Amino acid sequence: MSSERIYLDHAAGGVLFPSVQKEMLRYLVGVHASPGGGHREGRGAREELERARERVASFLGAKDTEGLVFMSGGTEAIQSAIRGWGEAVQSGTIYLSEMEHPAVESAVRALGKKGFTLVRVPVDGEGRLQWEKLRIEKEKGLVCVHLAHHDLGTVQNIAEARKFAEKAGAKLFVDATHGAGWVSFEVEKSGADLVALPGHRLGGPKGSGALWVRSGMPWAPLLEGGRQEMDRRAGTENLPAIVGFGVAAEEWKKRGDDFRKDAAESQRLLAEEILKKVSSAKLHGPELGLERSPNHLAFSFAGLEAESLALVLDRVGLAVRGGSGCVTREMKIPPAMRAIGAKPEEARALILFTIGIGTESKLMEDAADRVVQGVKRLQQALEA
Amino acid sequence: MSSERIYLDHAAGGVLFPSVQKEMLRYLVGVHASPGGGHREGRGAREELERARERVASFLGAKDTEGLVFMSGGTEAIQSAIRGWGEAVQSGTIYLSEMEHPAVESAVRALGKKGFTLVRVPVDGEGRLQWEKLRIEKEKGLVCVHLAHHDLGTVQNIAEARKFAEKAGAKLFVDATHGAGWVSFEVEKSGADLVALPGHRLGGPKGSGALWVRSGMPWAPLLEGGRQEMDRRAGTENLPAIVGFGVAAEEWKKRGDDFRKDAAESQRLLAEEILKKVSSAKLHGPELGLERSPNHLAFSFAGLEAESLALVLDRVGLAVRGGSGCVTREMKIPPAMRAIGAKPEEARALILFTIGIGTESKLMEDAADRVVQGVKRLQQALEA
Repeated sequence: MSSERIYLDHAAGGVLFPSVQKEMLRYLVGVHASPGGGHREGRGAREELERARERVASFLGAKDTEGLVFMSGGTEAIQSAIRGWGEAVQSGTIYLSEMEHPAVESAVRALGKKGFTLVRVPVDGEGRLQWEKLRIEKEKGLVCVHLAHHDLGTVQNIAEARKFAEKAGAKLFVDATHGAGWVSFEVEKSGADLVALPGHRLGGPKGSGALWVRSGMPWAPLLEGGRQEMDRRAGTENLPAIVGFGVAAEEWKKRGDDFRKDAAESQRLLAEEILKKVSSAKLHGPELGLERSPNHLAFSFAGLEAESLALVLDRVGLAVRGGSGCVTREMKIPPAMRAIGAKPEEARALILFTIGIGTESKLMEDAADRVVQGVKRLQQALEA
Repeated sequence: MSSERIYLDHAAGGVLFPSVQKEMLRYLVGVHASPGGGHREGRGAREELERARERVASFLGAKDTEGLVFMSGGTEAIQSAIRGWGEAVQSGTIYLSEMEHPAVESAVRALGKKGFTLVRVPVDGEGRLQWEKLRIEKEKGLVCVHLAHHDLGTVQNIAEARKFAEKAGAKLFVDATHGAGWVSFEVEKSGADLVALPGHRLGGPKGSGALWVRSGMPWAPLLEGGRQEMDRRAGTENLPAIVGFGVAAEEWKKRGDDFRKDAAESQRLLAEEILKKVSSAKLHGPELGLERSPNHLAFSFAGLEAESLALVLDRVGLAVRGGSGCVTREMKIPPAMRAIGAKPEEARALILFTIGIGTESKLMEDAADRVVQGVKRLQQALEA
């Protein structure tokens, strides 16, 4: 094992593309006018804003560039999507699983308190949503589906979600804050009405994200108080982050196949090594392949509590996430593990390995060796 | 006149402190973990986050550092302050003027639709709030006051607002998104319960801002769905922006007196030159001095429509704001101009000059000459 640290918590925060770095450097010096200014500086900013919008819309496969609204990140985009639909329709049914991201869950629960009906979509043992079993409510509806699951890596079948939404006469919200880029997705083909995008999980800057809103979609803005983003998101535009996001989107459009292939290679090596060397390891979510996001592995190690193991792995130079990637106060075990029927001791032992831009596949054997070492250390400590 | 452009629209977007640039540069390279990660990288991020929190809280004169919640900017902080109070109390009275920032106005109107009572605070001819004339409602209340006015530069007397709030048994929200730094303010002395802060108007990064919430204040978060910021603002922390904001706050704490003095000098020179050379110029808001924010001038030029004049000034190399700095869709003339009883032709002719970090006082005579030239050109064009 080398002494170099290995970082595999990219879903929580990672690296910028070098091209994004370069673009953002420009924003650290000189005057940075607001795109709303009528002067030359403002017009320049406006052009940069609109170029970034075109880039991100193009990455998303959206014909309607103007449907894209820049926001401060994935969480705001999710909250804005669901609450914005709720505000516009005032009553209706929301279809979602028990294992959506807390940003989705909390927005939906808030609407539930206001009288919206919630219908839960069952999931199978690998976290695939089971649309065929679902009852349909005869009122305005919103189908919430994630592109890839944050804790299980499960890639959802968006076409099936679309089919269900059509049958139910409901709108379709795709939470792509996990999965965007890593999982092939085109908004026009998907038929989605709302799509939430992250910036930082795409090698773009923190503080960037976007919501794409289909033209004519019943929706109201979350943040009001200014004319920015065509009255759909008030507040001074975070142009450095937006421009960086645009460059990241370009990278994915040009080289997305390479990124996915590289990630899948790292994923395969790491999973194989762990399964070969650690007998207690169990992979959760789908097997590797098209049904699993290539940047994601979720393992439990029988009998070892996740946070403790993550701390020991940190000591041996491997940064991973112990427990759910996205938690709220009341969570004891990750809801996704409960939803797929994992045993409680597995649920408490969830370790996430997430791969990012620049993760080197040649380090994966080393990473697996650190897992071996960490598991052994913790087992010994518990036996002693 | 030199050929160099002169930029005086800093309230809309300006420059970073060199020290902020330097700090943010670190964030363009390497791995940037999330403060929520239990690993070494995450702990490092957590330390940086908490150091920034201490810096901004200290700049604000807040003993309770933990009361500070980082947000994506001033607009989010304002919306979160007002809607968060509304969510927590469910009914009550809001006291505010007719000329608050659109972010304040829109949040208050939304609560008005839900049944909250709105009581409007009258203003005098320079935009000073007139608390003594106000009726008091016998229910939970929120007093909304801005530190400095975005269109008039008026510095409000926060002590009087506090006195009124106490009499009314109401909480006090200070919108410092305009005025922070430029106007002396300390949260503990002020007795404020909620304070909204901008990052970028303080020489910090776009995408940064904060809400300070007094401990025990009835308040609920706006963005939910993650445990960041102690459950008060969900979403991956925009650490590069937060850290930059912290450094900017430090600069103000150390050198705020110099910044205010330098700005006041530029303000004085520019105002004097304009008033001397342009007979049609009229200053709106208070005279220069402690009652006016030192970074702000609001002029009307009789008979010249603001947007046209701003465009002509842009042609002669002076970037200023024509019309209100912060507008919403329905606005025809700036509400503040109506509130202070300006004539409609003055209200339509409002030009804002806002000074920022690095504005050079030696350029102000030149700037005034460009105003002379622009006014002349536009007058000639209209007479021709």
